[in-house]
Amino acid sequence: MKNNQITTYLAEQKARVDNALKEYFADGNPLFRIMHYSVDRGKRIRPILAIASFEACGGEDFARIMPIACGLELIHTYSLIHDDLPSMDNDDLRRGKPSAHKKFGEAMAILSGDGLCAYAFELFTQGNDLMEEKYVVVQSLSEVIGPDGIVYGQVLDITEQVRIPHSLRLIHFNKTAKFIAVSLKCGAIMAQASQKLVDALFSAGVYLGMLFQYTDDILDIVGKKSTLGKTPGKDSTAGKLTAPGLYGLDGARFRAQRYAQIAQNRFASLGERFDVLSDIVTFVLKRTY
Amino acid sequence: MKNNQITTYLAEQKARVDNALKEYFADGNPLFRIMHYSVDRGKRIRPILAIASFEACGGEDFARIMPIACGLELIHTYSLIHDDLPSMDNDDLRRGKPSAHKKFGEAMAILSGDGLCAYAFELFTQGNDLMEEKYVVVQSLSEVIGPDGIVYGQVLDITEQVRIPHSLRLIHFNKTAKFIAVSLKCGAIMAQASQKLVDALFSAGVYLGMLFQYTDDILDIVGKKSTLGKTPGKDSTAGKLTAPGLYGLDGARFRAQRYAQIAQNRFASLGERFDVLSDIVTFVLKRTY
Repeated sequence: MKNNQITTYLAEQKARVDNALKEYFADGNPLFRIMHYSVDRGKRIRPILAIASFEACGGEDFARIMPIACGLELIHTYSLIHDDLPSMDNDDLRRGKPSAHKKFGEAMAILSGDGLCAYAFELFTQGNDLMEEKYVVVQSLSEVIGPDGIVYGQVLDITEQVRIPHSLRLIHFNKTAKFIAVSLKCGAIMAQASQKLVDALFSAGVYLGMLFQYTDDILDIVGKKSTLGKTPGKDSTAGKLTAPGLYGLDGARFRAQRYAQIAQNRFASLGERFDVLSDIVTFVLKRTY
Repeated sequence: MKNNQITTYLAEQKARVDNALKEYFADGNPLFRIMHYSVDRGKRIRPILAIASFEACGGEDFARIMPIACGLELIHTYSLIHDDLPSMDNDDLRRGKPSAHKKFGEAMAILSGDGLCAYAFELFTQGNDLMEEKYVVVQSLSEVIGPDGIVYGQVLDITEQVRIPHSLRLIHFNKTAKFIAVSLKCGAIMAQASQKLVDALFSAGVYLGMLFQYTDDILDIVGKKSTLGKTPGKDSTAGKLTAPGLYGLDGARFRAQRYAQIAQNRFASLGERFDVLSDIVTFVLKRTY
Protein backbone atom coordinates (compact mmCIF):
# COMPACT_ATOMS: atom_id res chain seq x y z
CA MET A 1 0.00 0.00 0.00
CA LYS A 2 1.28 3.45 -0.94
CA ASN A 3 1.61 6.11 1.71
CA ASN A 4 -1.53 7.96 0.56
CA GLN A 5 -3.44 4.68 0.42
CA ILE A 6 -2.83 3.87 4.10
CA THR A 7 -3.70 7.47 4.99
CA THR A 8 -7.02 7.07 3.16
CA TYR A 9 -7.60 3.69 4.80
CA LEU A 10 -7.00 5.14 8.27
CA ALA A 11 -9.27 8.12 7.56
CA GLU A 12 -12.06 5.82 6.38
CA GLN A 13 -11.80 3.55 9.39
CA LYS A 14 -11.62 6.54 11.73
CA ALA A 15 -14.85 7.89 10.23
CA ARG A 16 -16.58 4.54 10.83
CA VAL A 17 -15.39 4.52 14.44
CA ASP A 18 -16.35 8.15 15.00
CA ASN A 19 -19.85 7.50 13.68
CA ALA A 20 -20.31 4.46 15.87
CA LEU A 21 -19.01 6.34 18.92
CA LYS A 22 -21.46 9.15 18.23
CA GLU A 23 -24.29 6.62 18.31
CA TYR A 24 -23.14 5.23 21.64
CA PHE A 25 -23.29 8.72 23.14
CA ALA A 26 -26.44 9.95 21.41
CA ASP A 27 -28.68 9.33 24.42
CA GLY A 28 -28.28 9.10 28.13
CA ASN A 29 -28.02 11.27 31.21
CA PRO A 30 -25.84 14.42 31.37
CA LEU A 31 -22.79 12.37 32.40
CA PHE A 32 -22.72 10.85 28.91
CA ARG A 33 -22.17 14.30 27.38
CA ILE A 34 -19.27 14.92 29.75
CA MET A 35 -17.78 11.55 28.87
CA HIS A 36 -18.21 12.18 25.15
CA TYR A 37 -16.34 15.48 25.37
CA SER A 38 -13.13 13.58 26.11
CA VAL A 39 -13.86 10.78 23.63
CA ASP A 40 -14.34 13.25 20.80
CA ARG A 41 -11.38 13.83 18.45
CA GLY A 42 -8.95 10.95 18.81
CA LYS A 43 -6.74 9.19 16.29
CA ARG A 44 -8.68 5.95 16.98
CA ILE A 45 -5.54 3.86 16.51
CA ARG A 46 -6.67 1.07 18.86
CA PRO A 47 -10.14 0.58 17.37
CA ILE A 48 -8.68 0.72 13.86
CA LEU A 49 -6.16 -1.97 14.81
CA ALA A 50 -8.99 -4.16 16.12
CA ILE A 51 -10.98 -3.66 12.93
CA ALA A 52 -7.97 -4.24 10.66
CA SER A 53 -7.07 -7.40 12.54
CA PHE A 54 -10.71 -8.58 12.44
CA GLU A 55 -10.89 -8.12 8.68
CA ALA A 56 -7.45 -9.61 8.04
CA CYS A 57 -8.53 -12.69 10.02
CA GLY A 58 -11.53 -13.10 7.73
CA GLY A 59 -14.13 -11.34 9.87
CA GLU A 60 -16.95 -9.95 7.75
CA ASP A 61 -19.87 -8.85 9.89
CA PHE A 62 -18.81 -5.39 10.96
CA ALA A 63 -21.40 -5.29 13.76
CA ARG A 64 -19.40 -7.95 15.58
CA ILE A 65 -16.26 -5.90 15.99
CA MET A 66 -17.58 -2.34 16.28
CA PRO A 67 -18.72 -2.38 19.94
CA ILE A 68 -15.41 -4.00 20.92
CA ALA A 69 -13.39 -1.52 18.85
CA CYS A 70 -15.24 1.44 20.37
CA GLY A 71 -14.87 -0.01 23.87
CA LEU A 72 -11.10 -0.01 23.35
CA GLU A 73 -11.24 3.71 22.55
CA LEU A 74 -13.28 4.36 25.71
CA ILE A 75 -10.69 2.55 27.84
CA HIS A 76 -7.91 4.53 26.16
CA THR A 77 -9.75 7.81 26.75
CA TYR A 78 -10.39 6.94 30.40
CA SER A 79 -6.68 6.32 30.92
CA LEU A 80 -5.84 9.67 29.27
CA ILE A 81 -8.32 11.56 31.49
CA HIS A 82 -6.87 10.07 34.66
CA ASP A 83 -3.25 10.49 33.50
CA ASP A 84 -3.90 14.18 32.77
CA LEU A 85 -5.14 14.94 36.31
CA PRO A 86 -3.26 17.52 38.39
CA SER A 87 -2.06 14.85 40.84
CA MET A 88 -0.56 12.90 37.93
CA ASP A 89 0.82 14.44 34.73
CA ASN A 90 -1.12 17.70 35.16
CA ASP A 91 -1.80 18.22 31.46
CA ASP A 92 -4.19 21.02 30.58
CA LEU A 93 -4.41 20.25 26.87
CA ARG A 94 -5.62 17.02 25.27
CA ARG A 95 -6.87 16.29 21.78
CA GLY A 96 -6.55 19.96 20.93
CA LYS A 97 -8.81 21.26 23.69
CA PRO A 98 -8.84 21.71 27.47
CA SER A 99 -8.43 18.36 29.23
CA ALA A 100 -11.42 17.02 31.20
CA HIS A 101 -10.41 18.42 34.58
CA LYS A 102 -9.80 21.88 33.09
CA LYS A 103 -13.22 21.80 31.47
CA PHE A 104 -15.32 20.12 34.17
CA GLY A 105 -13.22 20.12 37.35
CA GLU A 106 -11.33 17.26 38.95
CA ALA A 107 -14.27 15.37 40.44
CA MET A 108 -16.17 15.20 37.17
CA ALA A 109 -12.98 14.28 35.30
CA ILE A 110 -12.29 11.34 37.60
CA LEU A 111 -15.91 10.20 37.43
CA SER A 112 -16.13 10.57 33.65
CA GLY A 113 -13.05 8.34 33.39
CA ASP A 114 -14.62 5.80 35.74
CA GLY A 115 -17.81 5.97 33.70
CA LEU A 116 -15.98 5.37 30.42
CA CYS A 117 -14.23 2.31 31.80
CA ALA A 118 -17.50 0.72 32.93
CA TYR A 119 -19.26 1.74 29.73
CA ALA A 120 -16.53 -0.01 27.74
CA PHE A 121 -17.40 -3.28 29.47
CA GLU A 122 -21.05 -2.66 28.62
CA LEU A 123 -20.01 -2.44 24.97
CA PHE A 124 -17.83 -5.56 25.23
CA THR A 125 -20.87 -7.52 26.45
CA GLN A 126 -23.59 -6.08 24.23
CA GLY A 127 -26.12 -8.67 23.10
CA ASN A 128 -26.19 -12.40 23.72
CA ASP A 129 -24.49 -13.69 20.58
CA LEU A 130 -20.86 -14.88 20.50
CA MET A 131 -20.82 -14.98 24.29
CA GLU A 132 -17.74 -17.19 24.51
CA GLU A 133 -15.74 -14.95 22.19
CA LYS A 134 -16.74 -11.83 24.09
CA TYR A 135 -16.02 -13.55 27.39
CA VAL A 136 -12.45 -14.11 26.18
CA VAL A 137 -12.30 -10.47 25.04
CA VAL A 138 -13.24 -9.31 28.56
CA GLN A 139 -10.80 -11.79 30.09
CA SER A 140 -7.95 -10.63 27.85
CA LEU A 141 -8.71 -6.95 28.24
CA SER A 142 -9.17 -6.85 32.00
CA GLU A 143 -5.74 -8.45 32.31
CA VAL A 144 -3.95 -5.75 30.33
CA ILE A 145 -5.75 -2.63 31.54
CA GLY A 146 -5.35 -3.22 35.27
CA PRO A 147 -2.70 -3.66 37.98
CA ASP A 148 -0.62 -5.89 35.70
CA GLY A 149 -0.99 -3.60 32.72
CA ILE A 150 -1.91 0.02 32.00
CA VAL A 151 -2.47 1.03 35.62
CA TYR A 152 0.84 -0.49 36.71
CA GLY A 153 2.55 1.22 33.77
CA GLN A 154 1.19 4.57 34.91
CA VAL A 155 2.29 3.90 38.50
CA LEU A 156 5.82 3.18 37.24
CA ASP A 157 5.69 6.17 34.90
CA ILE A 158 5.14 8.57 37.81
CA THR A 159 7.29 6.81 40.42
CA GLU A 160 10.18 5.02 38.70
CA GLN A 161 13.53 6.46 39.69
CA VAL A 162 15.92 3.93 38.20
CA ARG A 163 16.95 5.07 34.72
CA ILE A 164 17.91 1.81 33.04
CA PRO A 165 16.63 0.08 29.88
CA HIS A 166 14.80 -2.53 31.95
CA SER A 167 12.68 0.16 33.66
CA LEU A 168 11.88 1.84 30.35
CA ARG A 169 10.79 -1.46 28.81
CA LEU A 170 8.64 -2.27 31.83
CA ILE A 171 6.85 1.10 31.63
CA HIS A 172 6.34 0.98 27.86
CA PHE A 173 5.29 -2.66 27.88
CA ASN A 174 2.68 -2.19 30.60
CA LYS A 175 1.46 1.29 29.79
CA THR A 176 1.18 1.03 26.03
CA ALA A 177 2.39 -2.10 24.27
CA LYS A 178 0.11 -4.71 25.89
CA PHE A 179 -2.97 -2.63 25.15
CA ILE A 180 -2.04 -2.11 21.49
CA ALA A 181 -1.32 -5.83 21.26
CA VAL A 182 -4.63 -6.80 22.85
CA SER A 183 -6.47 -4.57 20.36
CA LEU A 184 -5.17 -6.79 17.56
CA LYS A 185 -5.95 -9.87 19.64
CA CYS A 186 -9.58 -8.79 20.15
CA GLY A 187 -10.07 -8.38 16.42
CA ALA A 188 -8.80 -11.91 15.87
CA ILE A 189 -10.97 -13.35 18.66
CA MET A 190 -14.11 -11.74 17.24
CA ALA A 191 -13.23 -13.11 13.78
CA GLN A 192 -13.06 -16.55 15.44
CA ALA A 193 -9.46 -16.97 14.33
CA SER A 194 -7.41 -19.92 15.54
CA GLN A 195 -5.71 -19.69 18.94
CA LYS A 196 -2.37 -19.77 17.11
CA LEU A 197 -3.27 -16.72 15.03
CA VAL A 198 -4.72 -14.90 18.06
CA ASP A 199 -1.45 -15.45 19.92
CA ALA A 200 0.68 -14.48 16.92
CA LEU A 201 -1.16 -11.18 16.53
CA PHE A 202 -0.79 -10.35 20.22
CA SER A 203 2.89 -11.15 20.08
CA ALA A 204 3.51 -9.04 16.94
CA GLY A 205 1.33 -6.31 18.44
CA VAL A 206 3.68 -5.92 21.38
CA TYR A 207 6.39 -4.71 18.97
CA LEU A 208 3.97 -2.34 17.28
CA GLY A 209 3.01 -1.11 20.75
CA MET A 210 6.62 -0.51 21.75
CA LEU A 211 7.12 1.37 18.47
CA PHE A 212 4.02 3.44 19.22
CA GLN A 213 5.34 4.51 22.62
CA TYR A 214 8.81 5.25 21.19
CA THR A 215 7.32 7.56 18.58
CA ASP A 216 5.21 9.12 21.34
CA ASP A 217 8.34 9.82 23.38
CA ILE A 218 10.11 11.21 20.31
CA LEU A 219 7.17 13.46 19.41
CA ASP A 220 7.18 14.79 22.97
CA ILE A 221 10.52 16.36 21.97
CA VAL A 222 10.24 17.14 18.26
CA GLY A 223 6.46 17.43 17.86
CA LYS A 224 4.42 20.60 17.48
CA LYS A 225 1.65 21.52 19.92
CA SER A 226 -0.72 22.38 17.06
CA THR A 227 -0.43 18.98 15.40
CA LEU A 228 -0.09 16.93 18.60
CA GLY A 229 -3.13 18.49 20.28
CA LYS A 230 -1.31 18.19 23.59
CA THR A 231 1.59 20.02 25.20
CA PRO A 232 4.95 18.68 23.98
CA GLY A 233 8.00 18.62 26.22
CA LYS A 234 5.98 17.64 29.30
CA ASP A 235 7.62 14.26 29.81
CA SER A 236 11.17 15.44 29.37
CA THR A 237 10.75 18.49 31.62
CA ALA A 238 8.98 16.37 34.25
CA GLY A 239 12.14 14.25 34.36
CA LYS A 240 10.28 11.16 33.20
CA LEU A 241 12.05 8.13 31.92
CA THR A 242 11.64 8.25 28.12
CA ALA A 243 13.28 6.57 25.14
CA PRO A 244 15.14 9.72 23.96
CA GLY A 245 16.04 10.48 27.59
CA LEU A 246 17.76 7.14 27.88
CA TYR A 247 19.14 6.64 24.37
CA GLY A 248 19.19 10.14 22.88
CA LEU A 249 17.00 11.13 19.95
CA ASP A 250 19.00 9.18 17.37
CA GLY A 251 19.25 6.13 19.59
CA ALA A 252 15.49 6.21 20.15
CA ARG A 253 14.84 6.55 16.43
CA PHE A 254 17.14 3.65 15.67
CA ARG A 255 15.37 1.45 18.21
CA ALA A 256 11.96 2.55 16.95
CA GLN A 257 12.94 1.37 13.48
CA ARG A 258 14.05 -1.95 14.89
CA TYR A 259 10.70 -2.46 16.62
CA ALA A 260 8.94 -1.55 13.37
CA GLN A 261 11.04 -4.07 11.46
CA ILE A 262 10.30 -6.91 13.88
CA ALA A 263 6.57 -6.13 13.85
CA GLN A 264 6.53 -6.07 10.05
CA ASN A 265 8.42 -9.35 9.80
CA ARG A 266 5.88 -10.93 12.12
CA PHE A 267 2.92 -9.59 10.13
CA ALA A 268 4.55 -10.63 6.84
CA SER A 269 4.90 -14.19 8.16
CA LEU A 270 1.12 -14.36 8.59
CA GLY A 271 0.42 -13.79 4.91
CA GLU A 272 -0.60 -11.06 2.50
CA ARG A 273 -3.92 -10.39 4.20
CA PHE A 274 -1.96 -8.85 7.05
CA ASP A 275 -0.13 -6.32 4.85
CA VAL A 276 -2.45 -3.61 6.10
CA LEU A 277 -0.95 -4.05 9.58
CA SER A 278 2.56 -3.65 8.16
CA ASP A 279 1.39 -0.45 6.47
CA ILE A 280 0.05 0.80 9.79
CA VAL A 281 3.47 0.08 11.29
CA THR A 282 5.08 2.30 8.64
CA PHE A 283 2.51 5.00 9.33
CA VAL A 284 3.20 4.88 13.08
CA LEU A 285 6.95 5.02 12.50
CA LYS A 286 6.59 8.17 10.40
CA ARG A 287 3.75 9.84 12.29
CA THR A 288 3.95 13.51 13.25
CA TYR A 289 0.94 13.51 15.63
CA MET B 1 -32.82 -17.16 62.62
CA LYS B 2 -32.17 -15.50 65.97
CA ASN B 3 -30.22 -12.28 66.15
CA ASN B 4 -27.04 -13.99 67.36
CA GLN B 5 -27.42 -16.65 64.69
CA ILE B 6 -27.37 -14.14 61.83
CA THR B 7 -24.43 -12.37 63.48
CA THR B 8 -22.55 -15.68 63.56
CA TYR B 9 -23.53 -16.41 59.96
CA LEU B 10 -22.28 -13.01 58.80
CA ALA B 11 -19.02 -13.41 60.72
CA GLU B 12 -18.42 -16.85 59.19
CA GLN B 13 -19.10 -15.65 55.66
CA LYS B 14 -16.95 -12.58 56.20
CA ALA B 15 -14.05 -14.81 57.29
CA ARG B 16 -14.41 -16.88 54.10
CA VAL B 17 -14.40 -13.72 51.98
CA ASP B 18 -11.46 -12.21 53.87
CA ASN B 19 -9.44 -15.39 53.37
CA ALA B 20 -10.19 -15.51 49.67
CA LEU B 21 -9.34 -11.82 49.26
CA LYS B 22 -6.04 -12.40 51.03
CA GLU B 23 -5.21 -15.09 48.48
CA TYR B 24 -6.01 -12.75 45.58
CA PHE B 25 -3.53 -10.22 46.94
CA ALA B 26 -0.83 -12.62 48.11
CA ASP B 27 1.39 -12.07 45.07
CA GLY B 28 1.94 -9.38 42.52
CA ASN B 29 3.77 -6.13 42.05
CA PRO B 30 3.87 -3.35 44.70
CA LEU B 31 0.60 -1.87 43.40
CA PHE B 32 -1.25 -4.95 44.71
CA ARG B 33 -0.15 -4.12 48.25
CA ILE B 34 -1.46 -0.57 47.89
CA MET B 35 -4.74 -1.88 46.53
CA HIS B 36 -5.06 -4.41 49.35
CA TYR B 37 -4.60 -1.71 51.99
CA SER B 38 -7.99 -0.28 51.03
CA VAL B 39 -9.63 -3.66 50.54
CA ASP B 40 -8.63 -4.77 54.04
CA ARG B 41 -11.26 -4.47 56.79
CA GLY B 42 -14.68 -4.17 55.20
CA LYS B 43 -18.07 -5.47 56.28
CA ARG B 44 -18.18 -7.58 53.08
CA ILE B 45 -21.94 -7.06 52.77
CA ARG B 46 -22.00 -7.34 48.97
CA PRO B 47 -19.94 -10.55 48.70
CA ILE B 48 -21.95 -12.10 51.54
CA LEU B 49 -25.17 -11.25 49.71
CA ALA B 50 -23.85 -12.91 46.56
CA ILE B 51 -22.86 -16.03 48.52
CA ALA B 52 -26.14 -16.17 50.44
CA SER B 53 -28.10 -15.79 47.23
CA PHE B 54 -25.96 -18.44 45.51
CA GLU B 55 -26.54 -20.95 48.31
CA ALA B 56 -30.25 -20.13 48.63
CA CYS B 57 -30.61 -20.77 44.89
CA GLY B 58 -29.11 -24.22 45.35
CA GLY B 59 -25.51 -23.39 44.43
CA GLU B 60 -23.08 -25.81 46.04
CA ASP B 61 -19.60 -25.45 44.57
CA PHE B 62 -18.22 -22.56 46.55
CA ALA B 63 -15.39 -22.01 44.04
CA ARG B 64 -17.96 -20.86 41.51
CA ILE B 65 -19.16 -17.89 43.50
CA MET B 66 -16.04 -16.81 45.41
CA PRO B 67 -14.20 -14.92 42.63
CA ILE B 68 -17.43 -13.12 41.73
CA ALA B 69 -18.18 -12.29 45.38
CA CYS B 70 -14.65 -10.94 45.91
CA GLY B 71 -14.84 -8.98 42.66
CA LEU B 72 -17.92 -7.21 44.02
CA GLU B 73 -15.94 -6.17 47.09
CA LEU B 74 -13.14 -4.81 44.88
CA ILE B 75 -15.63 -2.71 42.88
CA HIS B 76 -17.14 -1.42 46.12
CA THR B 77 -13.69 -0.55 47.50
CA TYR B 78 -12.71 1.23 44.28
CA SER B 79 -15.82 3.38 44.50
CA LEU B 80 -15.04 4.23 48.15
CA ILE B 81 -11.46 5.23 47.30
CA HIS B 82 -12.58 7.58 44.53
CA ASP B 83 -15.49 8.99 46.57
CA ASP B 84 -13.11 9.78 49.44
CA LEU B 85 -10.77 11.88 47.25
CA PRO B 86 -10.24 15.56 48.15
CA SER B 87 -12.02 16.71 44.97
CA MET B 88 -15.07 14.66 45.96
CA ASP B 89 -16.15 13.91 49.56
CA ASN B 90 -12.69 14.60 51.00
CA ASP B 91 -12.85 11.89 53.66
CA ASP B 92 -9.64 11.22 55.57
CA LEU B 93 -10.88 8.18 57.45
CA ARG B 94 -12.17 4.94 55.97
CA ARG B 95 -12.53 1.48 57.46
CA GLY B 96 -10.96 2.76 60.67
CA LYS B 97 -7.73 3.98 59.10
CA PRO B 98 -6.44 6.78 56.87
CA SER B 99 -8.16 6.70 53.49
CA ALA B 100 -6.06 5.78 50.45
CA HIS B 101 -5.15 9.33 49.41
CA LYS B 102 -4.08 10.21 52.98
CA LYS B 103 -1.89 7.13 53.09
CA PHE B 104 -0.44 7.07 49.56
CA GLY B 105 -1.25 10.45 48.00
CA GLU B 106 -3.91 11.31 45.45
CA ALA B 107 -2.26 9.83 42.35
CA MET B 108 -1.76 6.43 43.92
CA ALA B 109 -5.26 6.51 45.39
CA ILE B 110 -6.84 7.15 42.00
CA LEU B 111 -4.68 4.48 40.36
CA SER B 112 -5.30 1.91 43.09
CA GLY B 113 -9.04 2.44 42.55
CA ASP B 114 -8.60 2.03 38.79
CA GLY B 115 -6.55 -1.10 39.42
CA LEU B 116 -9.20 -2.61 41.70
CA CYS B 117 -11.92 -2.06 39.11
CA ALA B 118 -9.96 -3.84 36.38
CA TYR B 119 -8.84 -6.58 38.78
CA ALA B 120 -12.51 -7.21 39.63
CA PHE B 121 -13.20 -7.99 35.96
CA GLU B 122 -10.22 -10.36 35.98
CA LEU B 123 -11.87 -12.19 38.88
CA PHE B 124 -15.26 -12.20 37.12
CA THR B 125 -13.66 -13.95 34.14
CA GLN B 126 -11.31 -16.37 35.89
CA GLY B 127 -11.10 -19.74 34.19
CA ASN B 128 -12.96 -21.04 31.17
CA ASP B 129 -15.86 -22.85 32.82
CA LEU B 130 -19.39 -21.41 33.02
CA MET B 131 -18.45 -18.81 30.43
CA GLU B 132 -22.05 -17.93 29.57
CA GLU B 133 -22.99 -17.39 33.22
CA LYS B 134 -19.94 -15.23 33.83
CA TYR B 135 -20.60 -13.33 30.62
CA VAL B 136 -24.03 -12.42 32.01
CA VAL B 137 -22.40 -11.47 35.32
CA VAL B 138 -20.08 -9.04 33.52
CA GLN B 139 -22.98 -7.74 31.43
CA SER B 140 -25.16 -7.16 34.49
CA LEU B 141 -22.39 -5.64 36.58
CA SER B 142 -20.98 -3.26 34.01
CA GLU B 143 -24.48 -1.84 33.60
CA VAL B 144 -24.90 -0.99 37.28
CA ILE B 145 -21.41 0.26 38.14
CA GLY B 146 -21.07 2.79 35.34
CA PRO B 147 -22.65 5.95 33.92
CA ASP B 148 -26.15 4.53 34.46
CA GLY B 149 -25.37 3.29 37.95
CA ILE B 150 -22.81 3.92 40.68
CA VAL B 151 -20.83 6.59 38.80
CA TYR B 152 -23.99 8.49 37.90
CA GLY B 153 -25.16 8.20 41.51
CA GLN B 154 -21.92 9.76 42.71
CA VAL B 155 -22.21 12.55 40.13
CA LEU B 156 -25.71 13.33 41.42
CA ASP B 157 -24.55 12.99 45.02
CA ILE B 158 -22.01 15.79 44.58
CA THR B 159 -23.99 18.00 42.18
CA GLU B 160 -27.72 17.61 42.87
CA GLN B 161 -29.29 20.85 44.10
CA VAL B 162 -32.98 19.96 43.99
CA ARG B 163 -34.07 18.68 47.39
CA ILE B 164 -37.09 16.57 46.53
CA PRO B 165 -37.91 12.86 47.11
CA HIS B 166 -37.36 12.07 43.42
CA SER B 167 -33.76 13.32 43.57
CA LEU B 168 -33.06 11.35 46.73
CA ARG B 169 -34.46 8.16 45.21
CA LEU B 170 -32.42 8.68 42.05
CA ILE B 171 -29.19 9.07 44.03
CA HIS B 172 -29.85 6.12 46.34
CA PHE B 173 -31.06 3.89 43.52
CA ASN B 174 -28.02 4.53 41.33
CA LYS B 175 -25.33 4.87 43.95
CA THR B 176 -26.26 1.99 46.22
CA ALA B 177 -29.44 0.03 45.55
CA LYS B 178 -28.68 -1.31 42.07
CA PHE B 179 -25.29 -2.61 43.17
CA ILE B 180 -26.71 -4.37 46.24
CA ALA B 181 -29.41 -5.82 44.00
CA VAL B 182 -26.94 -7.03 41.39
CA SER B 183 -24.91 -8.76 44.11
CA LEU B 184 -27.93 -10.98 44.80
CA LYS B 185 -28.48 -11.37 41.07
CA CYS B 186 -24.90 -12.56 40.49
CA GLY B 187 -25.29 -15.23 43.16
CA ALA B 188 -28.41 -16.50 41.43
CA ILE B 189 -26.77 -16.45 37.98
CA MET B 190 -23.79 -18.45 39.21
CA ALA B 191 -26.17 -20.99 40.81
CA GLN B 192 -27.78 -21.31 37.37
CA ALA B 193 -31.14 -20.26 38.78
CA SER B 194 -34.10 -19.60 36.47
CA GLN B 195 -34.38 -16.20 34.81
CA LYS B 196 -37.53 -15.62 36.88
CA LEU B 197 -35.65 -16.18 40.14
CA VAL B 198 -32.69 -14.07 38.98
CA ASP B 199 -35.08 -11.20 38.22
CA ALA B 200 -37.00 -11.63 41.49
CA LEU B 201 -33.80 -11.44 43.51
CA PHE B 202 -32.65 -8.31 41.72
CA SER B 203 -36.01 -6.69 42.25
CA ALA B 204 -36.14 -7.57 45.98
CA GLY B 205 -32.51 -6.52 46.28
CA VAL B 206 -33.36 -2.98 45.20
CA TYR B 207 -35.45 -2.57 48.39
CA LEU B 208 -32.65 -4.03 50.50
CA GLY B 209 -30.28 -1.61 48.78
CA MET B 210 -32.52 1.37 49.47
CA LEU B 211 -32.73 0.25 53.10
CA PHE B 212 -28.95 -0.03 53.21
CA GLN B 213 -28.47 3.56 52.04
CA TYR B 214 -31.16 4.84 54.41
CA THR B 215 -29.39 3.26 57.39
CA ASP B 216 -26.12 4.70 56.04
CA ASP B 217 -27.65 8.18 55.99
CA ILE B 218 -29.09 7.68 59.49
CA LEU B 219 -25.75 6.43 60.86
CA ASP B 220 -24.07 9.51 59.40
CA ILE B 221 -26.07 11.42 62.04
CA VAL B 222 -26.40 9.04 64.99
CA GLY B 223 -23.38 6.77 64.44
CA LYS B 224 -20.09 6.81 66.34
CA LYS B 225 -16.76 7.35 64.60
CA SER B 226 -15.17 4.44 66.49
CA THR B 227 -17.76 1.89 65.32
CA LEU B 228 -18.33 3.37 61.84
CA GLY B 229 -14.62 3.53 60.99
CA LYS B 230 -15.33 6.72 59.06
CA THR B 231 -16.16 10.29 60.02
CA PRO B 232 -19.87 10.72 60.82
CA GLY B 233 -21.71 13.96 60.07
CA LYS B 234 -19.85 14.49 56.78
CA ASP B 235 -22.90 14.24 54.53
CA SER B 236 -25.14 16.47 56.59
CA THR B 237 -22.50 19.18 57.08
CA ALA B 238 -21.60 19.04 53.36
CA GLY B 239 -25.23 19.91 52.67
CA LYS B 240 -25.79 16.65 50.83
CA LEU B 241 -29.26 15.39 50.06
CA THR B 242 -29.88 12.59 52.60
CA ALA B 243 -32.88 10.69 53.88
CA PRO B 244 -32.89 12.34 57.34
CA GLY B 245 -32.20 15.70 55.69
CA LEU B 246 -35.35 15.34 53.63
CA TYR B 247 -37.64 13.45 56.00
CA GLY B 248 -36.12 14.06 59.43
CA LEU B 249 -34.61 11.25 61.51
CA ASP B 250 -37.96 9.71 62.43
CA GLY B 251 -39.29 10.00 58.89
CA ALA B 252 -36.14 8.31 57.56
CA ARG B 253 -36.43 5.51 60.14
CA PHE B 254 -40.06 4.98 59.24
CA ARG B 255 -39.24 4.73 55.56
CA ALA B 256 -36.27 2.44 56.24
CA GLN B 257 -38.63 0.06 58.03
CA ARG B 258 -40.98 0.15 55.09
CA TYR B 259 -38.18 -0.76 52.66
CA ALA B 260 -37.16 -3.59 55.01
CA GLN B 261 -40.73 -4.89 55.11
CA ILE B 262 -41.10 -4.90 51.34
CA ALA B 263 -37.75 -6.67 50.89
CA GLN B 264 -38.69 -9.29 53.48
CA ASN B 265 -42.09 -9.88 51.88
CA ARG B 266 -40.35 -10.44 48.54
CA PHE B 267 -37.81 -12.87 50.01
CA ALA B 268 -40.54 -14.70 51.92
CA SER B 269 -42.48 -15.20 48.70
CA LEU B 270 -39.49 -17.09 47.26
CA GLY B 271 -39.61 -19.78 49.94
CA GLU B 272 -37.90 -20.78 53.18
CA ARG B 273 -34.48 -21.17 51.59
CA PHE B 274 -34.39 -17.40 51.30
CA ASP B 275 -35.01 -16.75 55.01
CA VAL B 276 -31.32 -15.95 55.41
CA LEU B 277 -31.82 -12.90 53.18
CA SER B 278 -34.72 -11.72 55.35
CA ASP B 279 -32.47 -12.10 58.39
CA ILE B 280 -29.82 -9.99 56.66
CA VAL B 281 -32.51 -7.34 56.07
CA THR B 282 -33.26 -7.27 59.81
CA PHE B 283 -29.53 -7.01 60.52
CA VAL B 284 -29.12 -4.08 58.10
CA LEU B 285 -32.16 -2.31 59.60
CA LYS B 286 -30.66 -2.53 63.10
CA ARG B 287 -27.00 -2.05 62.23
CA THR B 288 -24.84 0.38 64.17
CA TYR B 289 -21.86 0.34 61.75
